[in-house]
Amino acid sequence: MKIALSQLNYHIGNFEENTSKIIESIRRAKKEKADLVVFSELAVCGYPPLDFLEFGDFVKKCKTSIDTIAKECNDISAIVGAPSVNPVLKGKNLFNSAYFLQDGKIKDVIHKTLLPTYDVFDEYRYFEPNKKFACIEVNGETIALTICEDLWNEEDDPLYTFCPMDELIKSSPKFIINIAASPFDYVHSEFRKAILKRNVLKYELPIIYVNHVGAQTEMLFDGGSLIMNEKGEVLNELKYFEEDFLVIEVPSTKYQVPSKEKKYKSKIEKIHSALVMGVRDYFRKMNFRQATLGLSGGIDSAVVLVLAVEALGKENVFPVMMPSQFSSDHSVNDSVKLAENTGVTCHTIPIENIYDEYISATKPFFKGLPFNVAEENIQARIRGTLLMALSNKFGYILLNTSNKSELAVGYGTLYGDMCGGLSVIGDVYKTDVFELARYINRNKEIIPSTIITKPPSAELRPEQLDTDSLPPYDILDKILFQYIEQHSGPQEIIAAGYDEQLVRRILKMVNTNEYKRFQAPPILRVSPKAFGLGRRMPIVGKYLS
Amino acid sequence: MKIALSQLNYHIGNFEENTSKIIESIRRAKKEKADLVVFSELAVCGYPPLDFLEFGDFVKKCKTSIDTIAKECNDISAIVGAPSVNPVLKGKNLFNSAYFLQDGKIKDVIHKTLLPTYDVFDEYRYFEPNKKFACIEVNGETIALTICEDLWNEEDDPLYTFCPMDELIKSSPKFIINIAASPFDYVHSEFRKAILKRNVLKYELPIIYVNHVGAQTEMLFDGGSLIMNEKGEVLNELKYFEEDFLVIEVPSTKYQVPSKEKKYKSKIEKIHSALVMGVRDYFRKMNFRQATLGLSGGIDSAVVLVLAVEALGKENVFPVMMPSQFSSDHSVNDSVKLAENTGVTCHTIPIENIYDEYISATKPFFKGLPFNVAEENIQARIRGTLLMALSNKFGYILLNTSNKSELAVGYGTLYGDMCGGLSVIGDVYKTDVFELARYINRNKEIIPSTIITKPPSAELRPEQLDTDSLPPYDILDKILFQYIEQHSGPQEIIAAGYDEQLVRRILKMVNTNEYKRFQAPPILRVSPKAFGLGRRMPIVGKYLS
Repeated sequence: MKIALSQLNYHIGNFEENTSKIIESIRRAKKEKADLVVFSELAVCGYPPLDFLEFGDFVKKCKTSIDTIAKECNDISAIVGAPSVNPVLKGKNLFNSAYFLQDGKIKDVIHKTLLPTYDVFDEYRYFEPNKKFACIEVNGETIALTICEDLWNEEDDPLYTFCPMDELIKSSPKFIINIAASPFDYVHSEFRKAILKRNVLKYELPIIYVNHVGAQTEMLFDGGSLIMNEKGEVLNELKYFEEDFLVIEVPSTKYQVPSKEKKYKSKIEKIHSALVMGVRDYFRKMNFRQATLGLSGGIDSAVVLVLAVEALGKENVFPVMMPSQFSSDHSVNDSVKLAENTGVTCHTIPIENIYDEYISATKPFFKGLPFNVAEENIQARIRGTLLMALSNKFGYILLNTSNKSELAVGYGTLYGDMCGGLSVIGDVYKTDVFELARYINRNKEIIPSTIITKPPSAELRPEQLDTDSLPPYDILDKILFQYIEQHSGPQEIIAAGYDEQLVRRILKMVNTNEYKRFQAPPILRVSPKAFGLGRRMPIVGKYLS
Repeated sequence: MKIALSQLNYHIGNFEENTSKIIESIRRAKKEKADLVVFSELAVCGYPPLDFLEFGDFVKKCKTSIDTIAKECNDISAIVGAPSVNPVLKGKNLFNSAYFLQDGKIKDVIHKTLLPTYDVFDEYRYFEPNKKFACIEVNGETIALTICEDLWNEEDDPLYTFCPMDELIKSSPKFIINIAASPFDYVHSEFRKAILKRNVLKYELPIIYVNHVGAQTEMLFDGGSLIMNEKGEVLNELKYFEEDFLVIEVPSTKYQVPSKEKKYKSKIEKIHSALVMGVRDYFRKMNFRQATLGLSGGIDSAVVLVLAVEALGKENVFPVMMPSQFSSDHSVNDSVKLAENTGVTCHTIPIENIYDEYISATKPFFKGLPFNVAEENIQARIRGTLLMALSNKFGYILLNTSNKSELAVGYGTLYGDMCGGLSVIGDVYKTDVFELARYINRNKEIIPSTIITKPPSAELRPEQLDTDSLPPYDILDKILFQYIEQHSGPQEIIAAGYDEQLVRRILKMVNTNEYKRFQAPPILRVSPKAFGLGRRMPIVGKYLS
């Protein structure tokens, strides 16, 4: 039997585009003589549709798409993910389903059993878990059709009390198909393969795995659909971070091919590709073309500029320098050099005069009080206001340049440098931002080396350095990682060899700055625990604060 | 048997405060000869603890609190809500539990079965549903102990496939206890009573219901704990929007008392009390004292000012007028009058000079292009920057004054009038803001009548009126209500008699402005469907947009 794996980039709620992509792919699969073509989870509506699922009209449109797609399924079968209405009154109104299409109509509908409800996932918010188990049949072959999390019940600390495959195996399927919407993070693709392998070995069946690709605001899907034999060997793998299509023979003659993931040797390479895809897709799906950002002379804005140029083209990125009386000459020079290296046009809007007007307007109130964070933040907010003025006048989208370390400890100005439609590196710790910069310079110097080597500074007061208020980033980031990614408590982090006072101070900064992150832009998610959708904290919480 | 109902205002993660409140209440109950004292759901850690529950350290602190509280339980039993660790490896790591404390120790732990995972609730994100059922015994009386949602499986469209009371009833309990964290909205208290009544009638048992009270950022808990007899009559009811304590005899001699909810005759009265509590609690729990806000001369800022004065005292509210060349004389005069009426000190910072500096700084870029939303937004952002400068200098917290109608259609400036630590009326439609203003003026004119009667205007360009870009609010709000609260699709709203083009335009505005709301402050939730926590929409979605 020949099976086509169709790895597509869907757009949430864009039924017209998604449906026509799926139909195009079915036609291609037919041409290539496939018996079955497999699409990913919730393909017709995109993933995650979130509360759109609460609209009857939206759910109806999903069904209309499926009906349209079914008509294409003559001389071929297809598996397409979509929500379906729960016919039983009790329980949630919907299932997360895989439509099995054959002979121009809906032959069967298989529902997802294990509903991920953690981190960025909210599936039990919408879906009733499946409780009936049956395999499907294509060309006389029995297939165990599963949906993403259905295979993710880990042996050592299972999140669920049940394994759907334990039921499906009773029908003696010949192989497993899993349709997924499994988002990227820099460890996820290995983790995913390990889980698929454990299933393959446990049930002694090959697997065909079809994943989403593309970005939906903060959630990045890396693709990497694959076929794995019953020994756990990857026989073939689709592209990462790109749409792809493959027709294979199943059961497969063993033709192990070089993994397409191999081109990503390091975490930083993966993050780099993910971020470029994230920026590109955000713009395309929002129907935007051009971006702006503030160039400070620091490393964060330099890295974001380069990523934006890669994603959108140098002709579509309009960085702005906004020096104040506190900006150093080297910052301006470095920014000019960077703009030259990337080929973008960089404009300059000095902010001194505007700043002076604010100072004189607030003088009657501030009189006598020393310069402090109030005056610092005025500068950052002037820059935010100017960038948003360009955005409003020309339709540029402002890219936010905050990194994860500063978002964590609140080292940034709300409505100032925290402005932007999309946070590009908000899930990248400062130490990894340096790595990204070095990676960007791997072939030639694009980011001037002085930007990478000088000590980080916000330049909001004379001689300011980040280390005036924060520990060195290599220490800060390690403490943050243990707290945020690993959920370690203060005792554990201190026991790992960090200064008690420092640990308590940093954790307190993280927790008391929840109010700032609440108003941050959406953040491209590249780690297993990003701020935003996947990390939900009470603002009025009084824990470690 | 005498039972004490303890309705307390907990602070998320503030174990010290919560524990000592609970202990104080146990001592009072002992003094009043109660056999049992009942506290609400997740009392020791506050509700909702959200992802704090993913920290082992946090969960341990919950258990430590329970152990401390248990030691107080001599000569009295207590029921206290707290998370507990799931001893079984399979499934989620925690239960949402009710600790039954007796003889100075933990006598039993009862777990929640139905885990609300919709709107503002995410309980399946953290908790494993209970599958074992047993009643508890106090003084020889069998009691069915349930937790909030356990009684909420509605007959007509049940969200769950199972009713825990159907199991518990088999042990022939004498009455039901339900410990809850049931948040306020303006229809919720009636809805709650109706559900409790249906349970009482179905199982022919009286019920003792103990709810949270107080605000946790956006979630407002209104209290209203009660005892209802087996006929569904409310025998006694605790206060709304305040802590309260009551000892009652169960089974009760019938002493039906006047409902404490009766003082709230209308939706607007309830909203008013809820918002005042919301502002007060946010400040207390964040350890803030003083507020600032921009006074525009319009109705939104007028209403927020009055609510803030009620919540914090006139000596703690510092409104600021920031007139521009586009501000009308009547706006300034009305604001001065309002400040007089409320007894606050109002300062004025004209923004013309700052605005002129922005215009001259952007001139090289904007040259030749007509005045548009860019210049309008500069004004709003200057005001935001000035208010935040006062916030930074003096520790005032900026109150946001956006209403639900403008948040819905994106009629507001991100980083401008959308700034603030807390959105006070962001869940109140403009037509209800008018109602609130009239309610505030019920005894005497506090908000000058000219503020209520003049046509709304943002005053960002000459002669501007809201109706230049929006339909009249009475039409707009009705369409928004059908879409947002009722989840009606375009066809349904048009069928209800609204202009097709207008409906499509408004729904498109709602959906395309998701990116703005994403960065809005937390919004005090008073409706069944508020923006924020309870309404999760994809930003890159392309549905009705």
